[in-house]
Amino acid sequence: MGKNMNNFTFYSPTYFVFGRDQENNAGHYIKRFGGSRVLIHYGGGSVIRSGLLDRVKASLSKEGIEFLELGGVMPNPRSGLVYQGIELCKKNSLDFILAVGGGSVIDSAKAIAAGAKYDGDFWDFYEGKSVGEALKVGTVLTISAAGSEGSGDSVVTKEEGMLKRGTGSEALRPAFSILNPELTQTLPAYQTACGATDIMAHVFERYFTNTQEVEVTDRLCEAVLLAMIKEVPKVISNPDDYNARANIMWAGMVAHNNIVGVGRDQDWSSHVIEHELSALYDCAHGAGLAVVFPAWMTYVMKHDINRFAQLAVRVWGCHMDFSHPEAAAKEGIERFKLFLTSIGMPVNFSGLGAKEEDISVLAEKTGLGKDGTMGGFVRLKTQDVENILRLAL
Amino acid sequence: MGKNMNNFTFYSPTYFVFGRDQENNAGHYIKRFGGSRVLIHYGGGSVIRSGLLDRVKASLSKEGIEFLELGGVMPNPRSGLVYQGIELCKKNSLDFILAVGGGSVIDSAKAIAAGAKYDGDFWDFYEGKSVGEALKVGTVLTISAAGSEGSGDSVVTKEEGMLKRGTGSEALRPAFSILNPELTQTLPAYQTACGATDIMAHVFERYFTNTQEVEVTDRLCEAVLLAMIKEVPKVISNPDDYNARANIMWAGMVAHNNIVGVGRDQDWSSHVIEHELSALYDCAHGAGLAVVFPAWMTYVMKHDINRFAQLAVRVWGCHMDFSHPEAAAKEGIERFKLFLTSIGMPVNFSGLGAKEEDISVLAEKTGLGKDGTMGGFVRLKTQDVENILRLAL
Repeated sequence: MGKNMNNFTFYSPTYFVFGRDQENNAGHYIKRFGGSRVLIHYGGGSVIRSGLLDRVKASLSKEGIEFLELGGVMPNPRSGLVYQGIELCKKNSLDFILAVGGGSVIDSAKAIAAGAKYDGDFWDFYEGKSVGEALKVGTVLTISAAGSEGSGDSVVTKEEGMLKRGTGSEALRPAFSILNPELTQTLPAYQTACGATDIMAHVFERYFTNTQEVEVTDRLCEAVLLAMIKEVPKVISNPDDYNARANIMWAGMVAHNNIVGVGRDQDWSSHVIEHELSALYDCAHGAGLAVVFPAWMTYVMKHDINRFAQLAVRVWGCHMDFSHPEAAAKEGIERFKLFLTSIGMPVNFSGLGAKEEDISVLAEKTGLGKDGTMGGFVRLKTQDVENILRLAL
Repeated sequence: MGKNMNNFTFYSPTYFVFGRDQENNAGHYIKRFGGSRVLIHYGGGSVIRSGLLDRVKASLSKEGIEFLELGGVMPNPRSGLVYQGIELCKKNSLDFILAVGGGSVIDSAKAIAAGAKYDGDFWDFYEGKSVGEALKVGTVLTISAAGSEGSGDSVVTKEEGMLKRGTGSEALRPAFSILNPELTQTLPAYQTACGATDIMAHVFERYFTNTQEVEVTDRLCEAVLLAMIKEVPKVISNPDDYNARANIMWAGMVAHNNIVGVGRDQDWSSHVIEHELSALYDCAHGAGLAVVFPAWMTYVMKHDINRFAQLAVRVWGCHMDFSHPEAAAKEGIERFKLFLTSIGMPVNFSGLGAKEEDISVLAEKTGLGKDGTMGGFVRLKTQDVENILRLAL
């Protein structure tokens, strides 16, 4: 405790184009950022059915940009399609990847972008090798959640052994990202809530730190959370609320390009624990986080009661209990759970369809660091993970 | 009132390098961003006396980077030195400008960068012509105030007629900016407070808007203000408080790269009115803003009482007076004035050394738009400017 603000670098060079109809300018921005032969990468049928893909293709054609298409990205994007994309890029000398979709599509596009400029196996980058250079990536975002549109991160699953691994590099930050909130209006309430939970988790993972007195970062974290708490219930009850969709979409970027995280240590344990839940039960990442995060908070709260009390008071509107700060801290966690419930998220194992008898296996599988621990706020061992999962029963 | 969130673009490609000793990496970053023949641009003797310039030069030499030097930038940087810099760049085929100093030095460097790639008179850019391309600029920041280290803006004064004009372009955003809070620790309290006032003004100019429901931007604005209110008094009483200096330095960037301003109209009237005060009395920009801003707030408050009440409650910690929201709104403005006074800023004409009899001339000179008005929140005419200045008596 008590460390001073860390030295840091902050680099978010993506050109963000925000607002209605902006997908029709995809071709314009590809040209601006030097693309001429493009791979359009997307997921399932919804971008086709909605007409989005056609609008994007029309915008490329209008600019005289050649393109190939590769659809079929699944949630938790797979290495098989990445290899296909890399081959397409190399064979056809493509120089730009346009991802049309959510975080999975963008992460898959980043993997292709790195692999297309590399002679070896792209999976090397997901096993620790640094990405030196990559094709440029642009995005047309359709889901507010992962923040991949503004980050240099990518998570891909290797079919062989179903290994889920991530990489991160400045070279993988998108050249541009088109954010049209209207594109998220067709998303079902459950997926919207899962995305919102992921966004809030990205902030919490930066909020809980032992680095003291990084006031700007603290306040920016709280700012994003306050906006989410106000806006998410609106879109759950009215999916067509443009302003609320817009705020959530922008919050999703702000929550993860690291502007709310600089200058201090972070703690990503909840994300790591959740990966095992979605691997075993094939649940949505956001739903898993809704179950894990309040349990993690409850387990680690005592490590810094005042930080949890601050969250409760500043974000959840609780009154400070000056005689019993831990009461305020606890109340904040309760409010978070009530909020999650109110937007339709599960907050315990039964809500998720998870089983008590799996807990030891889940804890055993959780990928700790080489020293057998993880976490920048509180160091956790396997037994701690198990204790946390039991709190989520 | 009641407009929806505006479409917008957000582009902040600068690589920020934050923390102790980072000026020693200036050469490394110049190389990384493609510079090889550099103009080092700076102001007066303080960067020489402190040894900062020597450290920066050593870091360039270590990387084998050739450089020339051009010092002598004044507060409110002048066109004469810009012309000299442009000639140096052109004659010696320089390809990068490194600004070592505060906002004036950086603004001057940007003007040189634009002029060096242009056959005509660089002043064209300050009279409305768009900057197409420019040499790359890097910065080593020594004053937390203007936010020029993260913006594409530049303000220069033409000696002929003492015309103060600004330009803005994506091409003028620095390639990298080195922010070492220690470099600001030698700044006298008055200049520190002036810089802090400028930073807070940059936020207020984005906070007062008629665009409704841009929650993320609203909360981010309040976040920066809350951090400033906590940190600035600390450095006034203890100039060596590293964490407080660090928060203020980072806040200065965040306040002006537009992350706290996207999606809505802004109102820069107070900045425009202040320009006439500093032109006539040669006062510091921040001190002028401390006088103008509370008066402007008082004058326009009725346009949107609830927004001012929100500021009072969320930022200044006032209690909402639900029967009389205007009472809370007014209290917020009073708290702002008390805060300014507490950090040593003037809040009226006499504190600034300004004179009542100059008011009509000041109002007449204030540069309104072509239609004789200005302001994105409340449209002001010359008579309004005069009324505002009278409120500052």
